[in-house]
Amino acid sequence: MSVKISILDSFLLESGVTLQQVPVAYQCYGTLNTAKDNTILICHALTGSAEATDWWSGLVGEGKTIDTQKYFVVCVNVLGSPYGTASPLSINPETQKAYQANFPRTTIRDNVQLQKLVLQELGINKLFAVFGGSMGGMQALEWAFEKDWVENIGAFGCGGRHSAWAIGWGESQRMAIAADAHFNNGFYTQIPRAGFSAARQIAMLTYRTPQLYEERFGRTSRNDKFEIENYLNYQGDKLVNRFDANCYIQLTHTMDSHDVARNRGGYVEVLKSIQQKVLIVGIDHDVLYPLTEQQELAS
Amino acid sequence: MSVKISILDSFLLESGVTLQQVPVAYQCYGTLNTAKDNTILICHALTGSAEATDWWSGLVGEGKTIDTQKYFVVCVNVLGSPYGTASPLSINPETQKAYQANFPRTTIRDNVQLQKLVLQELGINKLFAVFGGSMGGMQALEWAFEKDWVENIGAFGCGGRHSAWAIGWGESQRMAIAADAHFNNGFYTQIPRAGFSAARQIAMLTYRTPQLYEERFGRTSRNDKFEIENYLNYQGDKLVNRFDANCYIQLTHTMDSHDVARNRGGYVEVLKSIQQKVLIVGIDHDVLYPLTEQQELAS
Repeated sequence: MSVKISILDSFLLESGVTLQQVPVAYQCYGTLNTAKDNTILICHALTGSAEATDWWSGLVGEGKTIDTQKYFVVCVNVLGSPYGTASPLSINPETQKAYQANFPRTTIRDNVQLQKLVLQELGINKLFAVFGGSMGGMQALEWAFEKDWVENIGAFGCGGRHSAWAIGWGESQRMAIAADAHFNNGFYTQIPRAGFSAARQIAMLTYRTPQLYEERFGRTSRNDKFEIENYLNYQGDKLVNRFDANCYIQLTHTMDSHDVARNRGGYVEVLKSIQQKVLIVGIDHDVLYPLTEQQELAS
Repeated sequence: MSVKISILDSFLLESGVTLQQVPVAYQCYGTLNTAKDNTILICHALTGSAEATDWWSGLVGEGKTIDTQKYFVVCVNVLGSPYGTASPLSINPETQKAYQANFPRTTIRDNVQLQKLVLQELGINKLFAVFGGSMGGMQALEWAFEKDWVENIGAFGCGGRHSAWAIGWGESQRMAIAADAHFNNGFYTQIPRAGFSAARQIAMLTYRTPQLYEERFGRTSRNDKFEIENYLNYQGDKLVNRFDANCYIQLTHTMDSHDVARNRGGYVEVLKSIQQKVLIVGIDHDVLYPLTEQQELAS
């Protein structure tokens, strides 16, 4: 089942920049009921796509937790991602060339507005729930501020705003990509493979605890390299083969934008103002978004 | 007070490789007593040098914890460091060119043997104590296996062996440097500034907890960048201006070699066999060497 693509004539970003002729890739599972109140929106993470049954196969499907026999499930690919929605890989209608590093920065809130347009196009004005993890969780939390839209929110493995720590990790990854011999400030003709792979390897380390890596690899080695090195190199290559470096940079900036309190008041007051039922789930082997952040959010 | 340099005719590494005409930089503070039993050896960390009063100014000096009025303090620059001892920057006597990436890999144990030669040259056959943090702590621990040499050992912020996690961080930093446009597999004519800076930025993040960075920077910004980004960029530049990329790579491999149990038996048994008084100090804001490792070591 291939993704659906809608083309918006234009889309105004939070930054004030307007994108023209904006493709939006999305996927639907299940059937919208006649009351139109059984929709669950799923929001994907950094390297995900609209194909929620691919990356959340354990959770989304017939008879699964997010049961597509009961719910109408919608997932929209985010701005800046290489999987169909407008991104650095898209053709800029003004120049007829790919945007590459000229693609404007987009925010978590931009994506919520884009999702809303897709849902309205599908005749939906109300969500039973919105779920997401990491960057998807950020979008889910932002939905709390769309009045009368959402009943239930599930935000997994993210905070109410991106921390200095998390921004720092994004920056160190951007620096590794920018250092690449082929990067050319984002206007590359050859893939900046080594720098992009290094960035992914950094990210992989932040997704797990020292204890988990120790149990799995310890100091075992093969082919003159420690197994942890072989593992990281493999993970780096794997992402380079399915993603784009400019898109990756773009989405780290999107995550940096995450702050539910921006232009809404004090952080704690803004969180307290949330009326919906919000399920916050921390991931105890996650180094990037430590449990303390989820506990802060939940309290 | 400039460092002293000894030149060894040759030095056999643990790997079996022999280095020829090996400069060794070291520094001494205080006076050796007539019983020759008041020597404290201090071992430096990754980016340190033999100038212990520079990088441990709060601990080493007249009237300080490591009192140079009472103790004769010796600090030897490690193999692979750009601060005077043989390294990728040294001239290879065989080729009359700098080794660069051809400098052989060296281990923590190699450095202990080198320190022993320097001490013997100074007429010392016994240490009152050996202290060090991080890579310095690894050397201090290795001294436990030099029979009848050391009375007291202080190893701060390191484990009994380098973990998969820590090896992984070294590897991701090496990958960032290797990606640099100027790196040329380590035979560079221009400094691989961007990649080396990215590596340092990664490392800086692993030296502190999310909480510390959050308190210091939060989401504050300046010049269109978050302050955490400005801080990391600054730290990256700073190291690039005083260190060398090949030396940095070399020393991350040296740390990867750290394993007190290598060729000595089971890890726990080897640790238990240590007879000296060992002070293990964990650093509670250290992400790279979590406290659990120090607790394991102490128990």
